Amino acid sequence: MALRIALLASAAGLAFGAKADEGMWMPSQLPQIAEQLAAAGYRGDPAALADLTRPPMSAVVSLGGCTASFVSPEGLVVTNHHCAYGAIQLNSTAKDNLLANGFIADTRAQEVSAGPAARVLVTTAFDRITDRILGDARGKTGRAYYEAVDAASKAAVAECEQEAGVRCSVANMYYGTDFYLIKQLELKDIRLVYAPPESIGGYGGEIDNFMWPRHSGDFAFYRAYVDKDGKPAAFATDNVPYQPKAFLEVSTDPVAEGDFAMLAGYPGRTFRHRTAAEFADQVGTQLPARVDLFGSLLETIARATAGNAEADVLYASQVASLKNNLKRAQGELDGLRRSDAVGVRQRDEAAMLAWLSKQPDAADTRRDIDAVQAVIAQSHATRERDQLFATMRSQTQLLKSAMQLQRLAIERGKPDAQRESGYQQRDEALIEASLKQVQRRYDPAVEKAVLAGLLARYRQLPATQRIAELDAVFGTDAAQATATLDALYAGTGLGAEAERLRLLAAAPAELEASTDPLMQAAATLLPAALRIEDADKEQDGELLRLRPAYMRALISYRESQGQAVYPDANSTLRVSYGKVSSLAPRDGVHYTPLTTVQGIVEKHTGEEPFDAPKPLRDAIAKGDFGSSIDPVLGTQTVNFMTNLDTTGGNSGSPVMDANGKLIGLNFDSNWEAVSASWMFDPRYKRAIHVDARYLRWLMAKVYPAPHLLKEMNLPVE
Amino acid sequence: MALRIALLASAAGLAFGAKADEGMWMPSQLPQIAEQLAAAGYRGDPAALADLTRPPMSAVVSLGGCTASFVSPEGLVVTNHHCAYGAIQLNSTAKDNLLANGFIADTRAQEVSAGPAARVLVTTAFDRITDRILGDARGKTGRAYYEAVDAASKAAVAECEQEAGVRCSVANMYYGTDFYLIKQLELKDIRLVYAPPESIGGYGGEIDNFMWPRHSGDFAFYRAYVDKDGKPAAFATDNVPYQPKAFLEVSTDPVAEGDFAMLAGYPGRTFRHRTAAEFADQVGTQLPARVDLFGSLLETIARATAGNAEADVLYASQVASLKNNLKRAQGELDGLRRSDAVGVRQRDEAAMLAWLSKQPDAADTRRDIDAVQAVIAQSHATRERDQLFATMRSQTQLLKSAMQLQRLAIERGKPDAQRESGYQQRDEALIEASLKQVQRRYDPAVEKAVLAGLLARYRQLPATQRIAELDAVFGTDAAQATATLDALYAGTGLGAEAERLRLLAAAPAELEASTDPLMQAAATLLPAALRIEDADKEQDGELLRLRPAYMRALISYRESQGQAVYPDANSTLRVSYGKVSSLAPRDGVHYTPLTTVQGIVEKHTGEEPFDAPKPLRDAIAKGDFGSSIDPVLGTQTVNFMTNLDTTGGNSGSPVMDANGKLIGLNFDSNWEAVSASWMFDPRYKRAIHVDARYLRWLMAKVYPAPHLLKEMNLPVE
Repeated sequence: MALRIALLASAAGLAFGAKADEGMWMPSQLPQIAEQLAAAGYRGDPAALADLTRPPMSAVVSLGGCTASFVSPEGLVVTNHHCAYGAIQLNSTAKDNLLANGFIADTRAQEVSAGPAARVLVTTAFDRITDRILGDARGKTGRAYYEAVDAASKAAVAECEQEAGVRCSVANMYYGTDFYLIKQLELKDIRLVYAPPESIGGYGGEIDNFMWPRHSGDFAFYRAYVDKDGKPAAFATDNVPYQPKAFLEVSTDPVAEGDFAMLAGYPGRTFRHRTAAEFADQVGTQLPARVDLFGSLLETIARATAGNAEADVLYASQVASLKNNLKRAQGELDGLRRSDAVGVRQRDEAAMLAWLSKQPDAADTRRDIDAVQAVIAQSHATRERDQLFATMRSQTQLLKSAMQLQRLAIERGKPDAQRESGYQQRDEALIEASLKQVQRRYDPAVEKAVLAGLLARYRQLPATQRIAELDAVFGTDAAQATATLDALYAGTGLGAEAERLRLLAAAPAELEASTDPLMQAAATLLPAALRIEDADKEQDGELLRLRPAYMRALISYRESQGQAVYPDANSTLRVSYGKVSSLAPRDGVHYTPLTTVQGIVEKHTGEEPFDAPKPLRDAIAKGDFGSSIDPVLGTQTVNFMTNLDTTGGNSGSPVMDANGKLIGLNFDSNWEAVSASWMFDPRYKRAIHVDARYLRWLMAKVYPAPHLLKEMNLPVE
Repeated sequence: MALRIALLASAAGLAFGAKADEGMWMPSQLPQIAEQLAAAGYRGDPAALADLTRPPMSAVVSLGGCTASFVSPEGLVVTNHHCAYGAIQLNSTAKDNLLANGFIADTRAQEVSAGPAARVLVTTAFDRITDRILGDARGKTGRAYYEAVDAASKAAVAECEQEAGVRCSVANMYYGTDFYLIKQLELKDIRLVYAPPESIGGYGGEIDNFMWPRHSGDFAFYRAYVDKDGKPAAFATDNVPYQPKAFLEVSTDPVAEGDFAMLAGYPGRTFRHRTAAEFADQVGTQLPARVDLFGSLLETIARATAGNAEADVLYASQVASLKNNLKRAQGELDGLRRSDAVGVRQRDEAAMLAWLSKQPDAADTRRDIDAVQAVIAQSHATRERDQLFATMRSQTQLLKSAMQLQRLAIERGKPDAQRESGYQQRDEALIEASLKQVQRRYDPAVEKAVLAGLLARYRQLPATQRIAELDAVFGTDAAQATATLDALYAGTGLGAEAERLRLLAAAPAELEASTDPLMQAAATLLPAALRIEDADKEQDGELLRLRPAYMRALISYRESQGQAVYPDANSTLRVSYGKVSSLAPRDGVHYTPLTTVQGIVEKHTGEEPFDAPKPLRDAIAKGDFGSSIDPVLGTQTVNFMTNLDTTGGNSGSPVMDANGKLIGLNFDSNWEAVSASWMFDPRYKRAIHVDARYLRWLMAKVYPAPHLLKEMNLPVE
């Protein structure tokens, strides 16, 4: 009966798709939803969108964590200012602070390296290899299942990376149901070309973060370079601009409410297909705990850097990231409660299970689904402890480096294919780059304070949750922890870059014999980290084995309702489409979908983050908006809002019009939508973009770069 | 030439009025602007609006500081919850907290006294008596001019008050240009009939104060009583309901954006016709100083009441008022800057003076205008000191009482007609009532802290600004001030109501002989207060004499542009008309003009001031809105917004539709409009009202009072 309804819906020409406006589609799914894409207003060929070697998709690239796109035949790349923040910071000096002043390379020779870790990754292939990945795993359980999938994935990656200059990965779709081999060209010589001052790129700062109305010029330009043979290569002065297979044309047309819009990018993670129990855990436990932890870390860092301007600068990036994460967690919590996400998901799951019970041969599926629920329930026992221990590494520089070095020494003892992901030969350059950057982000007093704070939280956990190795290193009370931290950081040589790089190159025996107290502490702690990792892998293995039953039931159930299912986001290339949209965030308030330079003036206080630079204010007052003026509003637009489906990782994503031309850059979501990683609520989900016309105006009239406009074939007035 | 333009404008049928939407018209002016009133949508007879003895104007009453209106033939009066706050608080006990629980008198017998100071004032006559008031003043200057006006006013009032049960006053229009004798019936037995809980009446509290979107049920009902002969009388159990000459009918029609709206009330003070120099002083000096002073008073009271729940309650009303005033001052400052009020007024004044210079016989006028400017410039010399000294009285209870008692003793030595306003025989009942209320608003530790704080600010002024009497009482350093305050408050008997009332009844000689240290301090300080008052009167007299030249020039200049001029507000009955209006407060944001119960749910946190009571939340969830449902929105509205011209004192003003029916109660302005007391900026000026339908729904379905609905001839469902 249910199947018949689905067929009738298709027969009647109804869209075969997800719920309205929702969807982070794999490009390969787009031909499947071609009809609804055309109905929404797309004028291109949906089949072309599925081809990663053709425009527009071949112009969309990953920066690793952010999205960007080629906008010229000479390798010019546009992304967000906040995605290029590290590169801008890296090239700033006391004499020339590029964050404050902005940066314009007037010539190619003036383009500066974005740093050794900067990458532009161009996805060139995306192939389903589910059978190859699962072949050896079938019949196994738990850790063994995980290892089999991991081994098969590594083998596939290793084989793929035989080709020079490419980086491969295996993407897990629908929670272990399908696997895809992704091949990416790995461009390594990335240079900074143009950035507005931070007071434009980050106008509104933390106060406006996640907020609408918004007035940020959150964009910057990179250029990708290759060696003279056109091959990916590390920075070298005689490298030449990369010539991409395709680039996006920047639109010169206006943008208005209701216009079709489409976005491509690398959304990081969503959890929309998680179980109802996981939704309940997220809202009831996880998010409140996260808000608490981030808040206390920020307090600790603020206290430790108070009155120390140098430390303040060193931790600016980490603090910004923590604040962002804290705000995000709180918004996610508020949003999930407002949308009654737990209730909605519970009713949806119950309906799915009721439907399933009426299907033939549902017993096996139901047994696996029940098993999934049981594994999830067990997984919460030592979670808070494990998260604190993980935070001790993720929020430090020297302790993290020491543990990375010790871990790498162990992994190096294995054949490369059996090494842990992130510690293979292919990863060593990235590890080196990260060891080099420590210097710019570390102050011993702050790191000690962070660890002291985390250890204090750890000591408040029940005795059953103690980690013997942590107690061995840091003792069991505050006085011992303080004394140990003082001794470790007074005695360690890891604060020096040369020493970190020496240890990176050293033989395992040398590390073992090291008398560096922090290296010794890391050696003591590592077994605990590995033990927890092992337990997680056992659990992950079971979930990897069992979740596909849940996902297949969900996909079938949706199919029975005439709906396609996109996989949850996993940092692979996805496409979303929708329209330029206003928002009614709450009773009595209506947000218009376009903001104008008038808002910059209204918000300007002269104090960071509302310190619009004088050239910008003067240009606004002058009112010469040239070819970028909005014909309806009669002024210069700044940002616009769509109902596109995005999440973290979509930063920098090109926003395209019905003809595939670039009309904006995604850079944020609204506050009401930060819960969208778990639940897409069409009433509240909006994405926030820099209007390409604002970018054009700034580059034409305010901080001129006519050579770049010409390179993009854009008017210079 | 200018005159000719005015005639042409009139001939062409153009509205003879102020700038669009602006205007607090005297009822007597409405026939003059009848055309534009009709064009705006009013369906009644503008001439009827000028008659204070006919509906609707005769239904609009003053509560002294607030406005209200009769809504039944049995003396039922509706006003704001915040206007009835004192009466609700007065009737609250530990056992039955009416603020928390609300109040419904199910029978007339259950209606409780609003207190001895409560009044309902019905304006019955409003006559121009300019010649009578100025006759004796002409030819005089300064203090003598002031005294002559004052004497003539008092004589007029005394003559008028020969009639029993009436209260008369002389209103100064256009800054001394015209004078009106106002006669008001003074109803003294006022009883509380109905009030929702404060969590409805003040939903949103200080956080939402001045804000939109708004969700307050800010209304309450009184009933006015008279003696058996129908005459005003103090509270007596056998008094009977007053039968007003007219009452407003409550509308049962919907309200929508663009609908005509009209409001009548007693707006307190506006300053729109002040000089450009006064505008500059307000923005540059006065408002910043006020923000600073109120902020420090609030800090002082917060510190002094910390951990003392009882003191907290005693000062709740004063703190609420200070917070309101602080927020208002800051909003006024922001708004005047945003509207460039100083620049606008400067250009307007310059244009007026340029026009004036071309008029025949303009020299005398110009000389008086220059003299006005000179007096204003002089008036700023000791202002900060004088304001601090005035604040010592206005923000205290016991010191204020002591100085009131001493002052009254002096005034009682004069013939009644020569006594200072506020200290005449007719005022003594009000003084007694205020002396009685001290008990509910006083804690010695807090009052000492407030005075210590103000004295500290006083001591920071330049030595040239010292007041010898203040120094004599409180010394010249912090230690002396503290010791004196301790001694004064330890030694005074004024903390006891009986003692205050005994001194009120005592002979002057008895006061003089008093050994009460606070009475002695007040006796020492009083000459300083009188001296400052004298200097002010000298200045006021000159301004009273000279400002009419400025006003007549302004009125003539406006006439030359075809515009009428309403007088600045002065707590007399005024009418404003306009429409239900949305607002675009800033770039990207649009406020809709009606809010709904959905917003109450969205804002509800369970914690004050967002603690919507359970019966309300349940009723919203139930969705049974009966006859009060909005037909377009399909739900229950709560508040609405118009562009009506209001200011403080308009609280409780009836908002009427095109037929004069009551559609809401004014209770606030939006944050962007609090600068409207100086400048009406039509882009931002809005007034915020309780929708009469919300009131009807609450009384029908949530806190039912069907007998009152029936009394107002309204559906009970």
